[in-house]
Amino acid sequence: MPHHPIPLAPWRPVLAGILHRNRSVPYSRYLQLATVRPDGRPANRTIVFRGFLENTNQLKFVTDARSEKADQIAQCDWGEVCWYFTQTREQMRLGGQLTLICENYPDSQLQQVRQMSWQELSDAARSQFAWPHPGKARSETTAFTVAPPDAMQPLSHFCLLLLDPIEVDHLELRGDPQNRTLYHWVKNDWTVEAVNP
Amino acid sequence: MPHHPIPLAPWRPVLAGILHRNRSVPYSRYLQLATVRPDGRPANRTIVFRGFLENTNQLKFVTDARSEKADQIAQCDWGEVCWYFTQTREQMRLGGQLTLICENYPDSQLQQVRQMSWQELSDAARSQFAWPHPGKARSETTAFTVAPPDAMQPLSHFCLLLLDPIEVDHLELRGDPQNRTLYHWVKNDWTVEAVNP
Repeated sequence: MPHHPIPLAPWRPVLAGILHRNRSVPYSRYLQLATVRPDGRPANRTIVFRGFLENTNQLKFVTDARSEKADQIAQCDWGEVCWYFTQTREQMRLGGQLTLICENYPDSQLQQVRQMSWQELSDAARSQFAWPHPGKARSETTAFTVAPPDAMQPLSHFCLLLLDPIEVDHLELRGDPQNRTLYHWVKNDWTVEAVNP
Repeated sequence: MPHHPIPLAPWRPVLAGILHRNRSVPYSRYLQLATVRPDGRPANRTIVFRGFLENTNQLKFVTDARSEKADQIAQCDWGEVCWYFTQTREQMRLGGQLTLICENYPDSQLQQVRQMSWQELSDAARSQFAWPHPGKARSETTAFTVAPPDAMQPLSHFCLLLLDPIEVDHLELRGDPQNRTLYHWVKNDWTVEAVNP
């Protein structure tokens, strides 16, 4: 997957401003990712925003190849994140294609990003990838007492997850009436439209 | 739709405790609802928890019949909410069937609940249902200057939305290791299982 430098999307400075204004709370980097299960039902869970993939508008996350979402994304690579910012009372919804960069992903540049994402985690976060299989019957407590994994080389089921938005919906609850802006990626360009909240 | 009194699900006291411990922040009643779009892609947005339908384990929300989610639910009546509680660092995911109680819904008992839900809203919240069509090109500011609608009788596109969970996933990020509990509705009863986080 080549990822040529592309222009900054018009919603990027907006999001950067929101993140800045909500920086006092660490959970402003927590958001909810919706995916579709193999049986066609939706799934939804909290994930952590890890910044943007350089020279793209793709959001970075990390996940465990053993998690249900990895299976879901393998079958339906579409996702929508919903991000609610408590301090400024704003919502950002971003829908687009998901790419899961696991151990066997062939692009060496993205493998490098996967490795860097591993290195940027805390010891505590890295240790979770050495924990027993998520979602399986609870293991003995001792199984969670693991030495911090190597900080340089990712464990095999550590994955980088990318979201490449093509639809972005920004809602400001403050303001009377509220403001809502839609951004669409159409024909290699972004459209921007003010809509009713 | 008859809704006979049923026993309180085992996750109900857990959720009640979480809501209590997070009561200092008003946004602890905000959560994210994932649905599936007619094209099979997921959608995700923030909604407000409005309590439980009496004598059931169904969560109440309200929505506008003109919103995209109403269309989505008409085609795929399955949803999963993801609820992140910032104060206690806990997540609750609840998946189940959605029921949209709009103006023409035939059950008179649920119509009564729809009416009560309207009456429980603030004037400001009710006024939003008198605003121009959500998602359409932005109307003149004057179109949002509406007299508060009648507080007793819901506007025609006001809908009650119910979620009847059959799968509940509770994750406590505090604790080392983290605790995760799954609740499943199987053969008319709830199973409870401790699983790996």
